[in-house]
Amino acid sequence: MPNSATIHDQAASERPPLRIAVAGLGTVGAGVIRLLEENRDLITRRAGRPIEVVAVSARDRNKDRGIDLSPYRWEDDMDDLAALADVDAVVEVIGGSDGPALTLARNTLKRGKPFVTANKAMIAHHGMELATIADSSDIPLKFEAAVAGGIPVIKALREGASANRITRVYGILNGTCNFILTKMEAEGRDFADVLTEAQAKGYAEADPSFDVDGVDAGHKLSILAAMCFGSRLDFGNVTTRGIRAITAADIREAETLGYRVRLIGMAEQGEDGLYQCVQPCLVPAEHPLGYVPGSLNAVVAEGNFVGRLFFEGAGAGDGPTASAVVADLIDVARNEYGPAFAMAVETLEALPVADSGGRSGKSYVRLIVADRTGVLAEIATAMRDAGVSVESFIQRGAQDGAALIAMVTHEGEARAVADAVSRLTASPNLLGDPVVMPILDL
Amino acid sequence: MPNSATIHDQAASERPPLRIAVAGLGTVGAGVIRLLEENRDLITRRAGRPIEVVAVSARDRNKDRGIDLSPYRWEDDMDDLAALADVDAVVEVIGGSDGPALTLARNTLKRGKPFVTANKAMIAHHGMELATIADSSDIPLKFEAAVAGGIPVIKALREGASANRITRVYGILNGTCNFILTKMEAEGRDFADVLTEAQAKGYAEADPSFDVDGVDAGHKLSILAAMCFGSRLDFGNVTTRGIRAITAADIREAETLGYRVRLIGMAEQGEDGLYQCVQPCLVPAEHPLGYVPGSLNAVVAEGNFVGRLFFEGAGAGDGPTASAVVADLIDVARNEYGPAFAMAVETLEALPVADSGGRSGKSYVRLIVADRTGVLAEIATAMRDAGVSVESFIQRGAQDGAALIAMVTHEGEARAVADAVSRLTASPNLLGDPVVMPILDL
Ligand SMILES: NC(=O)c1ccc[n+]([C@@H]2O[C@H](COP(=O)([O-])OP(=O)(O)OC[C@H]3O[C@@H](n4cnc5c(N)ncnc54)[C@H](OP(=O)(O)O)[C@@H]3O)[C@@H](O)[C@H]2O)c1
Ligand SMILES: NC(=O)c1ccc[n+]([C@@H]2O[C@H](COP(=O)([O-])OP(=O)(O)OC[C@H]3O[C@@H](n4cnc5c(N)ncnc54)[C@H](OP(=O)(O)O)[C@@H]3O)[C@@H](O)[C@H]2O)c1
Repeated sequence: MPNSATIHDQAASERPPLRIAVAGLGTVGAGVIRLLEENRDLITRRAGRPIEVVAVSARDRNKDRGIDLSPYRWEDDMDDLAALADVDAVVEVIGGSDGPALTLARNTLKRGKPFVTANKAMIAHHGMELATIADSSDIPLKFEAAVAGGIPVIKALREGASANRITRVYGILNGTCNFILTKMEAEGRDFADVLTEAQAKGYAEADPSFDVDGVDAGHKLSILAAMCFGSRLDFGNVTTRGIRAITAADIREAETLGYRVRLIGMAEQGEDGLYQCVQPCLVPAEHPLGYVPGSLNAVVAEGNFVGRLFFEGAGAGDGPTASAVVADLIDVARNEYGPAFAMAVETLEALPVADSGGRSGKSYVRLIVADRTGVLAEIATAMRDAGVSVESFIQRGAQDGAALIAMVTHEGEARAVADAVSRLTASPNLLGDPVVMPILDL
Repeated sequence: MPNSATIHDQAASERPPLRIAVAGLGTVGAGVIRLLEENRDLITRRAGRPIEVVAVSARDRNKDRGIDLSPYRWEDDMDDLAALADVDAVVEVIGGSDGPALTLARNTLKRGKPFVTANKAMIAHHGMELATIADSSDIPLKFEAAVAGGIPVIKALREGASANRITRVYGILNGTCNFILTKMEAEGRDFADVLTEAQAKGYAEADPSFDVDGVDAGHKLSILAAMCFGSRLDFGNVTTRGIRAITAADIREAETLGYRVRLIGMAEQGEDGLYQCVQPCLVPAEHPLGYVPGSLNAVVAEGNFVGRLFFEGAGAGDGPTASAVVADLIDVARNEYGPAFAMAVETLEALPVADSGGRSGKSYVRLIVADRTGVLAEIATAMRDAGVSVESFIQRGAQDGAALIAMVTHEGEARAVADAVSRLTASPNLLGDPVVMPILDL
């Protein structure tokens, strides 16, 4: 049976292996071991030499991880796996922006050994420092798995679209949020309800805030932005707004208007600097991001020659994430690599932060108000005084004598909409927090 | 204004440039020159050194190409641009599987200089020979632009998904056909009518057969297959069926059933060998390929760890194609490259050709028949005798006393459906050629 998984490349298998240590044996770590095992011959052929796990490390040596660890040496000391003479490269799949992951990264790169990680939090916070160490001795620092899991988007932007000035990059960068939003949409249920179910089924963490508040997507966005714009990674200036405030009613109204509610991370380089924001948006139903189902991720990049590129796939899970980690290892084994952020880190620009209030577009504004005489006039006045022109306006009866107001504004500056809403916040007629979402163009 | 297009990287711009010759100055060649000019500083930063056009060549020196060629040396002799001492690498954007493109490719690689091409016909026919020359001296042979234009799908498969056993790869590989089919769909018009308009507007060639008969998509498919399966490129065994036989009625029936008609190139490695086929298929409306608008291209790859990856973008045009050509040049300038087909060409397997009749799935069968007593029984008998079980059956009155029959079969082997149809071809009741299209699963 001519199955590439069973074909053996004698020459490649006899070349000196890339010997790796794997730090962290959770979801991703176990996936990496399983993948290297299951696709061993294929990987040897593609990499031109074997990739061999020589050492592994985690917290608890005795935990059952569903994989056979007996072929690999266990190392208790995880901090400096690169010090081991038989380790050529280190894979870090521990997690956490600091702590043992960061220590290991620094130690590995300082010893001049390649470092592969899935750790978006660490790259978002310390990517510039680590890239500086890596670039100074031309050592691979690779993190394909850190953004959008199995989708090779780092490679697509670093190399595939490298000839383009990228005008903006945006997408669905958190599978948990997309899972929740699409389930709310399909079943007409509210956020809290769906979240509880997702937690019970293991699709969402017990502490979901990294996901649902947009922090995880923000980490990934900051990495994408640096890769696209040749700018210094600047996670500190990513604005994040999560999906907790989105209700089933918002999703219904959006649908009526021809849109879907998605958590979108977007970075754009404009005249006045770099805009980076994670927030729920209304996406036109015919936009490719409008069709991304369940927990998938997707990234759109717009280049000045290539136009719009769209990439979709699994953003998490042991298999897809391991796929990205091992792709990085194959690049390392092949010796096909260069500066982590596509260009020498010292040449990355420190861009000013763009004024997000100046962004232009349509917005969706939803209010829950007391169903009293005069409320409509109050809202209309606030809009007028803030200079917001309304394109469509819907009022529906809600529970307990309240009314839901859903508006779509004409094109205008974000600051005007924010101003209009702030004019209303003091009103006793406003029940609960208003929701404002930008509307993406097609 | 902190725009990366205007940022200058002193160190990179002072490094020795990659000096290239561009052969062919048509749509793509002119695009490459324009791109290298317009994004010059950015490309220098990303490549770590300048990419400089030193020589150009085409047929007619005096043609106005809408670009200023005065900065570049014109070479009349195109056959051996690599012989020029100041040329480090050659870009071939002439076209044609043989002739001057092939001569130039051989000469360039034999001289040990990198060769970048957008020429799918040449790679499909001579890719193995060229890769053998390239691999023997570790010279880059790159052809990102040859498949799906601006979408970096060669890179995504060669590198991004390299850890996976790819089970199948398929997609919309010809923008002209997708443009025609989506226009037929949107406007309810017939093939010939839309083709004429597309030709008038320059979206289709005067001789459209390479596109509409599936040859161009077949070239691309054979390249994708070799890249995915570690198999020798085998264009000779790609089955191609084009879109000429598709009618507005087929598209309407498909729509009623929840499908869209798309020209799909698909390659799959099965137990019995390699299946490669370009043909119109019914794609579920919720499948990502069902949403690919107009002249865009899209590729799906399914890997044993990553799951389904989906890539979409512009498959042709000067900008997108130039984007891919220059991405290849940047890889060359960065020295980030390896074997053209991901692994040493002599290790690629010569796979047997899979028996396409044994493929299982649902099929759409459309017949135009005389509207006479007994015709229905004749069809039903043919189906029964061939062992085809019918899931849905529609008969509609057509013009001139004819009837249109559209059936969807239950899962079954393709050979049975072919058998059933062949039983009917002799019937005097059959008016015109039957159309059979496989139905993709979601
Ligand atoms: N899961 C995904 O789908 C996914 C997708 C993309 C990226 N990532 C990233 O991949 C990384 C790993 O994620 P994961 O889901 O695999 O995490 P996980 O399942 O929680 O596994 C973490 C592993 O690290 C070990 N570890 C944690 N803290 C440690 C410490 N202080 N010292 C030593 N070992 C320690 C754990 O050891 P014990 O097992 O002994 O406790 C465990 O094996 C994270 O950076 C994450 O963001 C994950
Ligand atoms: N166009 C696209 O969107 C696209 C997309 C992907 C890949 N490609 C591939 O890119 C290649 C170029 O396509 P294109 O659309 O740019 O073609 P094109 O516009 O027809 O240009 C072809 C160029 O090659 C020159 N040429 C042709 N025959 C020649 C000969 N015998 N000797 C010397 N020069 C010759 C022509 O010279 P003159 O101008 O002097 O006549 C012309 O400059 C093809 O392989 C095509 O398949 C094209």
